[in-house]
Amino acid sequence: MLNEEMVVTPWEVSGKIDYKKLVRKFGTQLITKDILERIKRYSGKLHMQLRRGLFFSHRDLDWILDLYDKGEGFCLYTGRGPSGPVHLGHLVPWFFTKYLQDAFDAKLYFQMTDDEKFLIHPELTTKAVNKFMYENTLDIIAVGFDPKKTLIISDIQSAKMLYNVAIRIAKHITFSTARAVFGFQDSSNIGIIFFPALQAVPAFLESIISKRNVPCLIPAAIDQDPYWRIARDVAPKLGFYKPAQIHCRFLPGLGKGGKMSASIPETCIFTTDEPETAEKKIMNAFTGGGATAEEQKKTGGTPSVCTVFQYMNYIFEEDDRKMEELYEGCRAGDVICGDCKQILAEMVKDFLIQHQEKREKARDVVEDFLVDDKLNIDVSWEE
Amino acid sequence: MLNEEMVVTPWEVSGKIDYKKLVRKFGTQLITKDILERIKRYSGKLHMQLRRGLFFSHRDLDWILDLYDKGEGFCLYTGRGPSGPVHLGHLVPWFFTKYLQDAFDAKLYFQMTDDEKFLIHPELTTKAVNKFMYENTLDIIAVGFDPKKTLIISDIQSAKMLYNVAIRIAKHITFSTARAVFGFQDSSNIGIIFFPALQAVPAFLESIISKRNVPCLIPAAIDQDPYWRIARDVAPKLGFYKPAQIHCRFLPGLGKGGKMSASIPETCIFTTDEPETAEKKIMNAFTGGGATAEEQKKTGGTPSVCTVFQYMNYIFEEDDRKMEELYEGCRAGDVICGDCKQILAEMVKDFLIQHQEKREKARDVVEDFLVDDKLNIDVSWEE
Repeated sequence: MLNEEMVVTPWEVSGKIDYKKLVRKFGTQLITKDILERIKRYSGKLHMQLRRGLFFSHRDLDWILDLYDKGEGFCLYTGRGPSGPVHLGHLVPWFFTKYLQDAFDAKLYFQMTDDEKFLIHPELTTKAVNKFMYENTLDIIAVGFDPKKTLIISDIQSAKMLYNVAIRIAKHITFSTARAVFGFQDSSNIGIIFFPALQAVPAFLESIISKRNVPCLIPAAIDQDPYWRIARDVAPKLGFYKPAQIHCRFLPGLGKGGKMSASIPETCIFTTDEPETAEKKIMNAFTGGGATAEEQKKTGGTPSVCTVFQYMNYIFEEDDRKMEELYEGCRAGDVICGDCKQILAEMVKDFLIQHQEKREKARDVVEDFLVDDKLNIDVSWEE
Repeated sequence: MLNEEMVVTPWEVSGKIDYKKLVRKFGTQLITKDILERIKRYSGKLHMQLRRGLFFSHRDLDWILDLYDKGEGFCLYTGRGPSGPVHLGHLVPWFFTKYLQDAFDAKLYFQMTDDEKFLIHPELTTKAVNKFMYENTLDIIAVGFDPKKTLIISDIQSAKMLYNVAIRIAKHITFSTARAVFGFQDSSNIGIIFFPALQAVPAFLESIISKRNVPCLIPAAIDQDPYWRIARDVAPKLGFYKPAQIHCRFLPGLGKGGKMSASIPETCIFTTDEPETAEKKIMNAFTGGGATAEEQKKTGGTPSVCTVFQYMNYIFEEDDRKMEELYEGCRAGDVICGDCKQILAEMVKDFLIQHQEKREKARDVVEDFLVDDKLNIDVSWEE
């Protein structure tokens, strides 16, 4: 069986202890078997990221499901900081978010924090973040979100709607609270100090637009948890539900240790990489294999630290049985890294060809997804 | 002659020293005779607020005039925080701004900081500031600004345009700079900490919209000077001219000491007061008269501390000769407060009747003045 021991994240290298420590430190809850069964009941089949423990922690997910049981739907909110091209690591939680959208027939608010990226990167111009925002939007659309139930929001393009709500949030956030959560310094610019208020807005947008209180579920990596504390603190003061969360671990990069990072291109497969480029990156990836094929056959590999294994486990191999065989085969020294890489490379090349086709088609429907102030969405509400 | 000794402002009660201290402290320049003559050359006639020293200090006004001499026009920028109704004290610099607009054929950006007022007043809702914003806009229009050359900007209504520029300003303003200028505390909310960036925007709007560098002159009370330091600091970093300023003193309220304040209604004449209400307030005003009419006839009055005199001097009596007679007559004990109040009351009643008529007509043309994001003004520029 694929159990929790096989999972590797940056904070799990030293074993199970750190991972539990993190959940304790943040005060979140582990996803229980009971919750998994409830999700399965609605979705028909559990997503492999749930089955294999990539999404493992939550806040108020049980409460969201209780309301859902009573017929009260929820909306989803996730986001992307468009400071560079999209890589496979970014897609992982988006695939999961699409699964949630389909399973629960949920409206999705997808925030593009182009303002944040402009404010924190000295070298980025508004023109540059706007280009990334547009290009990243194509990737989001290519994932297959429902155009009728998905609003992609550029902070800069939708500043009127967002600022109108953000000032009402900001009025309840003192500098000392924001500093404690985000670690602001005297040298922080005043734009980035205001940004947490803007980032909290989409958690309440469905309630504001539909003029009734709608629960919101945020799928995001667990390190993002503190950022939502502010939204949760402010929510009752504005008369809204606190946003719930479902947390995932990081997907490691192709290099040894660390998460996939766009700033080290050889560790990432970008969605716009030529299939052959991706293949080369995979063939050079860090694995859990021995120093030589001979040695590996003798001692076996270590799939829990193998990046190739992670890619199959969280993105490409849906079949639990095959993953189990691969795991056992690697441990026994029967599966050699070169072969395994080749299998993944074929999967990734197939995926890229399809994704890139969807990505190009997305250019024609960007307007259907991308919210702009031109839509003049009414965000007034009685305070 | 009406000389500077006659002027009273909150910081001039103890004599000329404080007033000079303020100019020194802020590092501004006094308006010289040379500057007055240059303004007179363009305007035909000096406004009484210049002749009588209400506007007395500046930054870079000489530079603005140098450019104007060379054929380079400038724009004007002033503002209003709509947290209550407009009173006569508010109108004083607006009259002067209209004079500048006419004299120099200048485009005017009039910022309504409804967001600021919402953020700093715990009890104010966005609905309430929006109502004040609209009502105050009627007063601004009633002053007679040129609809073809005047843009009234509600921060909340025009948040897309303003936020797009404000983040580019905010990127250059650290928290420590903002704290030093505005005195922010740990308890300050993060909306008001961002606000200085938004307040600086209109100083650059004409340059941004017209895609060429246009000088900007800000008429405002001298206590506002520090608020423009941030705009002046940032300007060269964005490739714009530093905004120039022309500073006025405060107009005192009808009560003893202090400036006219909407929070003490009996000290202010609101533009929407019934003429009879205004008359009553004036008849109860603090003057520089003696304890009794007998005493006043003997010792004479003190026009320099008289609120009735100030109103005539800065708003209602255009004729320098008449003001001189009034001044001398008061000092000599020939003019009695009751008579003087009655003269002012008639002037104010006449003014209010006319202003209120213009104010009602303004309802039909608000759209011509009020900028909204719906206009979709292009504020992009090459960084």
